Parts: sequence; structure tokens; C-alpha cells
Amino acid sequence: MTELTKIDEYLNTHLDESIAELSRLCAQPSIAAQNLGLKECANLVSEMLTSRGFEVQVMDTNGAPVVYAERKGISTKTLLFYNHYDVQPPEPLELWESPPFEPTLRDGKLYARGVSDDKGHITSRLFAIDALLEVFGDLPCNVKFIIEGEEETSSIHLHDFIKENRKLLAADACIWEFGGVDHRDIPIQYLGMRGICYVELSVTTAEIDVHSGLGGSIFPNAAWRLVWALNTIKGPNERISIPGHYDTVIAPSKRDRQLMEAMPEVSDEYKSRYGIDSFLKGLTGGVELRLAEVFEPTCTICGLTSGYQGEGSKTVLPARASAKLDFRLVPNQTPELVLAGLRKHLDNEGFQDIEIKYLGGEPAARTDPDDPFVDLVVSTAEPVYGQPMQKIPMTGGSGPNHVFIHTLNLPVATAGVSYPGTQGHAPNENLRLDLYLKGARHIARILWAYGNQD
Amino acid sequence: MTELTKIDEYLNTHLDESIAELSRLCAQPSIAAQNLGLKECANLVSEMLTSRGFEVQVMDTNGAPVVYAERKGISTKTLLFYNHYDVQPPEPLELWESPPFEPTLRDGKLYARGVSDDKGHITSRLFAIDALLEVFGDLPCNVKFIIEGEEETSSIHLHDFIKENRKLLAADACIWEFGGVDHRDIPIQYLGMRGICYVELSVTTAEIDVHSGLGGSIFPNAAWRLVWALNTIKGPNERISIPGHYDTVIAPSKRDRQLMEAMPEVSDEYKSRYGIDSFLKGLTGGVELRLAEVFEPTCTICGLTSGYQGEGSKTVLPARASAKLDFRLVPNQTPELVLAGLRKHLDNEGFQDIEIKYLGGEPAARTDPDDPFVDLVVSTAEPVYGQPMQKIPMTGGSGPNHVFIHTLNLPVATAGVSYPGTQGHAPNENLRLDLYLKGARHIARILWAYGNQD
Repeated sequence: MTELTKIDEYLNTHLDESIAELSRLCAQPSIAAQNLGLKECANLVSEMLTSRGFEVQVMDTNGAPVVYAERKGISTKTLLFYNHYDVQPPEPLELWESPPFEPTLRDGKLYARGVSDDKGHITSRLFAIDALLEVFGDLPCNVKFIIEGEEETSSIHLHDFIKENRKLLAADACIWEFGGVDHRDIPIQYLGMRGICYVELSVTTAEIDVHSGLGGSIFPNAAWRLVWALNTIKGPNERISIPGHYDTVIAPSKRDRQLMEAMPEVSDEYKSRYGIDSFLKGLTGGVELRLAEVFEPTCTICGLTSGYQGEGSKTVLPARASAKLDFRLVPNQTPELVLAGLRKHLDNEGFQDIEIKYLGGEPAARTDPDDPFVDLVVSTAEPVYGQPMQKIPMTGGSGPNHVFIHTLNLPVATAGVSYPGTQGHAPNENLRLDLYLKGARHIARILWAYGNQD
Repeated sequence: MTELTKIDEYLNTHLDESIAELSRLCAQPSIAAQNLGLKECANLVSEMLTSRGFEVQVMDTNGAPVVYAERKGISTKTLLFYNHYDVQPPEPLELWESPPFEPTLRDGKLYARGVSDDKGHITSRLFAIDALLEVFGDLPCNVKFIIEGEEETSSIHLHDFIKENRKLLAADACIWEFGGVDHRDIPIQYLGMRGICYVELSVTTAEIDVHSGLGGSIFPNAAWRLVWALNTIKGPNERISIPGHYDTVIAPSKRDRQLMEAMPEVSDEYKSRYGIDSFLKGLTGGVELRLAEVFEPTCTICGLTSGYQGEGSKTVLPARASAKLDFRLVPNQTPELVLAGLRKHLDNEGFQDIEIKYLGGEPAARTDPDDPFVDLVVSTAEPVYGQPMQKIPMTGGSGPNHVFIHTLNLPVATAGVSYPGTQGHAPNENLRLDLYLKGARHIARILWAYGNQD
């Protein structure tokens, strides 16, 4: 296939230029949580797209701007890339071996904050487009980009943006912002994400903290109220006690189980990586552990705060207590259902005093594992990676895929440049150059195959 | 009674000198929690006692030194004063109207950290001794002082010190470090203190925090483990569930109830001072509220700590969680009993993973409300305060009185210079000069009456 050989040749010989462009992008801090450098970074991304002949709009939202870009191709098909230009905060700085915003090459890897999540994904896609334009003078299909600046802060304005711009964003398929290989260097296709409903529970029992010698037997204690309320939400049997919480849950299908069975064993890796002795609910490993990991709703206490937290003892009866609670949702649970159920449950259990603050969420969403677009992405990976891409029907994490799958009605597939040592949200975030090149080769093949499908 | 008139005259005319001495003492910071100025303050107290003809020893402990002093008197009876020269940290500094270690007179009050707790008590006792020495040339009875430097950090070395120095500290009665009037300016006699057992519960379920999208359904969560363990210790019925916890509890006697009935109503004051709506266990006020406040064992969560505590959401599954727990004890509960019961209970409930760290404690202790020494202290108060002193059989707070009552075998009574607005552990700690003078007059009368009792 001579065209693909030419594309690979272009990519092999222009890698340094693309890494230089990625380095420029990483040198621009763009920290959503700190509202730092977002407009500057959006403009930089905009310039990069404009220079490839894209029509670009930097569009205002109530938060960071969204970069939208489109360029016509030969076929009538349209592929939408979803990416983000914002990054996680770099702290703790002292753990970085080179400064987070001074991209540095070491041992075949480029180190920088955002180099993998998600700037390397942006430039590897531009790199593939460069190769296609060089070899064919045109794109095989229409290409659109939506590159947001708030992914690391829960994409809070993306849903409205997409709902308001359905026509602009109309496409036939979507490539997600991330993708890559597993610890065996086998390419992975993630086909769904759990939803999430994140809340803060809080209770106030007095105007000020009280000396515990005074009030212990007669005053209400916010910390105890919180503990008792939480205990009614989930007990040691790990079953969420909110009535109706499991009513809309769809069990994994035979096909899901089949795909999960094909995945490698993870129990020993988890135990050694996280230092845990055993799994919940008597799970020991195998497909049952992998199914439980992603196909079961969860309720995780992410944080507890009340009263005195320093060294030693302080005899105080806390007036206020709060907990951060993260419900992971499976199809067809929704955040609205969880919120309503939680409020009713707490009221019924006598905890009208517990306030619920909704901190964000979205429903779970999945693409059919046997969707033709998914199969196109999977089949184009094998010649690049030398191994078949493995389909994973759902991951435990969450992201704004629901609005792409159910509002824009797109099949969503993943293809990217990450690997398990990429340190996405941690110090020394890095990108393997060999996987960067493979990622660009894969993206070029996807565009090529998609345009030549008709 | 011409001698007491002379004593009062001396005190009336030398008040300024005593306040000057108190100001010198308060100008010397002596913060036990920060190990700041303790030796300097011990030496200053030592000089003050030496100048009154006391034999003084500044005695080493494993912590701050103890100042011990004695001076013979006319009778064979020995009165022991327990005081402390350490103070609470002054923070938050911005809330002080004058600097905490620059004693300042305003509106008949002296403001400084420690001016009431407990330096004003020390110098008011020296002031009474000055008057007695001036009028009689001698003390009416033997007087001993034990002035420690770690009261604000739970007197952790005092028990051993007292057990090792029983002979040195031998006495016939003890005046406690605090005392004073209530919100009606009626003098109060506190006759007992609850004990305490302060522990930190903690649990570690993994070596590092895990992303909640990964582990929520399959990894143990330290925060949930802690919540469930706490829930087995006390439920919403406010009854402590540790088997045997109430076995050694002695119910208040008829006499206790009689004394509690004589006390003023507190419910409205509590509600407005602390901003609470209602009391626990259906209590609304009256003697039942006052009895519950001090005669019931408590288990107070003083603090909860786990995972993410900042603004907004972070999707983390915490590897570690901890709680500070304060058990208040009534006669004859002991910290040892509580610790053993708690460990056994957690084990039986399946929480072998919860660690218990003992942060200090002591049993409850009470002096017989009708002890002759108590009656002497009470009867000598009335001519000073113009109203009968009110006996309170027990307070809700805790202190190291057990070792004085049960190791040194002393009746312990209170007499002092505090009032409800004294702001003991808060900014703008202050001392009313009128009550300082009354406190010294009362102490002089106690010593005088005690020496002339035989």
C-alpha cells in the first residue's frame, strides 16, 4: 500500500518537527484549576490549526474558551476529534526532575506537564494531518476539532456548549481525547465510561464549636450526625442502601463478559501497585474482578472533614462536618436519579439536617463494541502496533462522553499516545516518542480508511 | 474580727503592687504547647515564692519543670495549692485588642494571656500570703505549692511526679488551680471532675490513595472503614455500644441531685451562646439537663480526617482515615477500662484493622460535698462575696484531680478569681480586679480559718 508507506516515511522523517511543536505547546502553562494561561493556550492551538488550513473559531463559554476548527476533505464523511488544551496543576514541584513547563527529552521520552494529557494527543493528530496533506494534498474526509479548556475541572461548560452547537459539531464519528497501550504495549480500545455524581454532604449543629467537657452529653455533634448519615448510605456489605439505586442498572451483556474475559489478569498488579491485601466482596481476581471494577455502581467517600485535625488531642465538639462523596454510575443511572434518591433517603432516615451540594456529574455512556467505526479504528491499529487492538467495553473512570454519544449521536472510539507509565496527573508526566510516532501513524490510517470507506 | 479587718485593709491598699507582680508574670510567655519560655517562667515563679520565705525547688520532670515550695506555719495543718505557670497559645493574634504578652488595664480588667488561667490565681494566693505575713508575721498553717508547667498539654508528667513525691507533697487539704463566680457573680464550689480517655482511631487500607474511578468497587476504602467502625461505637440513640462501658458507672446520689436542683436553669443560655436548637435525648432543661451534662459518660468525635478536604471535587479513594475520640468518664470508669473495652469491641465487630492510639486520660474524681474542708472553704466565701457559695458536685470538664484525691488522699476544693467572661483559652483573656481582690480575701480567710481550726 504505497500511500501509507509514504505517510509513514513522512512521519518518520518529520518527528523532530512535531516534537518541537509539542514542546512549544507544553511550554505554555494552561492550568484550568488556577485559571492560568488558558486564553494564551487556546490562541496557540488556534494558530496551529490555522496553519494547517483549518477554519478556526475561538469560542467563548462561561469558562475557558473552546477552540473549534474544521477543514473539508475528499469524502462526505466527517470525523470529530475531541481534545483539551488545559492541564493539571504541576504541584508538587519538588518531585519533578525537570521543570514542568520546560519540556525536556530524556531516554526517548519527552517530560512536561500536559505532554500526554492532552497536548501530545493534539499535536500527534496534527502531525498525522500534516502527513496526509503532504502525501495527498488534501484530507481523506472532513475533519473537525473541538478542543476545550476545562477537562481537568470536570468539563463543566462543555455540555451546554455542545447542546448549543449541535449543527456546527455535526459529524459521523468521534475520536476521543485519549488512548494508547497497556502494560504489555498492546493497544487498547476503551468503549465506554462510567458516569459520576459528585456531592458534598455537610451538617451544622451549632454556631460555634463547643468544649467537649461541656456539651458531650447534651449537645448535638456534627461529626456524629455525618457518620450516622453516611452509614445509612452504604454498610460494610458494600451495597448502596438508597432505595431504587440499582433499579436502572443494566447488567453486562454476554458480549461484555466475552470482551472482559479476553483481558489480562490484574489482581497481582493491583495488589503490588497500591499495596492492598485483598479485594472487596470476596473477589480474588479473574473476569469477576474486572467486571466488578467497571460494571458496578460505587459510592466512594473521597474526603472527611470535621473538628480538630492536628497533632495530639484537642477537646472540641465540632459544630460542622462534611464529606465528599463520589457515586460512579453505570448505564442507565443518571446523576439526577442519584441526587433525588439520596435526598429522599436521608430524609426518611431522619437526616433532614444533612445538606447535599452537587459538585458535578454526568451519566455513563457506551459505544457498541461492534460498531463499524470501532472496528475500523481497531483494524487500522494492528499494522502499526504489530498486535491486535484489544476492546474494553467500559472503563471505571468518567468523562463527558455521554454528550458526544447521546447528544451528537456519534460512535466514540479511542486512539492515542499514552502508556501506563505516562504519569498523567502526577510529577514527571512523560510521553514515549516511539508511541507518539505510532499514535500519529494510527491516526493517519484511521482518517485514510474512513475517507476511503464509501 | 479585727485580724481579718487588718488583712482586708492590707489587700485594699496593696492591690496595685500585686497587679504589678501579676503583670510581670504575664509578660513572660510560657506556652507549653510550643515549649516556649517554660524554664524562664518557672524561675520567675520560684523567685516570687523565695521572696516570701518559701523553700523552693525547681524540679525536673521528663517535660517542663515543676516548682515546689513550702513554708511552715503556726498550726500543724498543711494546705497544698495546685497551680500551673504555663498558658495556652495566644493565637489568633489579630483578635487581641492589646498584645497578649503586654498586660494592659482597661475598664477595671487586666488583659493578658494567662492572666486568669492560671497566673492570676498564683499571684492572688501570694497576695493573700503577703497580707497574712504582714498582719501576723507568720502563716496560720503550713503551706505547700505545686506549680506545674504542662497543665495546658494534659499534665502528662504530673501523675508520675506526684506518685514519686508523695512524702514531699503530704498535706491535709488541697486548693485547686481555679475557681470563681458564675454569671450571677455567685461564688461556685466545684467538687469533682469527669475523667477522660482521649484516643485517635486510624485505619490504613492501601499504600497510596487510588483514583476513585479505578478502585471504587473493588478496593477497601479507609474512610468507609472508619465510618462503619465509629457507627458501632455509638448510634443515634446516643448510647455507647461498647459492652460493659456502663458497668462501673455510679449514679448520682440523692445529695448530688439536691445540689444540682439548687443550680440555676441553663437551657436558654446554652441555646443562645452556642446557637443550638435543641438538646439530645429529648432533654429540654431543668435538673435533668444539668445531671445529664456531667453525670453521663460521653463519646465525642472531636475530629475526622480523610482524603480530599479542599474546595470542589477530587476523585480519590483514600488510603488512610482517622478520628479523634474523647470519652468523658464518670466515677468509677477508668481510661484502662475504656481502652480495653474499645479494642475488644472493635475486634468483635470486625474492625481489627482500626488502630487505637491513646493520647491521654485520667479517671473521674470527686470530693465529698460535705467534707469539713469543703464546708470551711464555702463558709469563708460568704463574708467576701456577700452571698453563700454554691456547691456543684461535678463539672463536665476533666483535670488531674484524681491523683490529688486518690494518691495524696486530699479533699480538693476550689477558690479563685475567674468569671464566665474571663476568656480562658481565647483572645482577650482578662481578669476582673474586683474579683481578684475578693479571691485574695477568700484565700486569706481559708488559710486563717484552717490554721485556727484545731
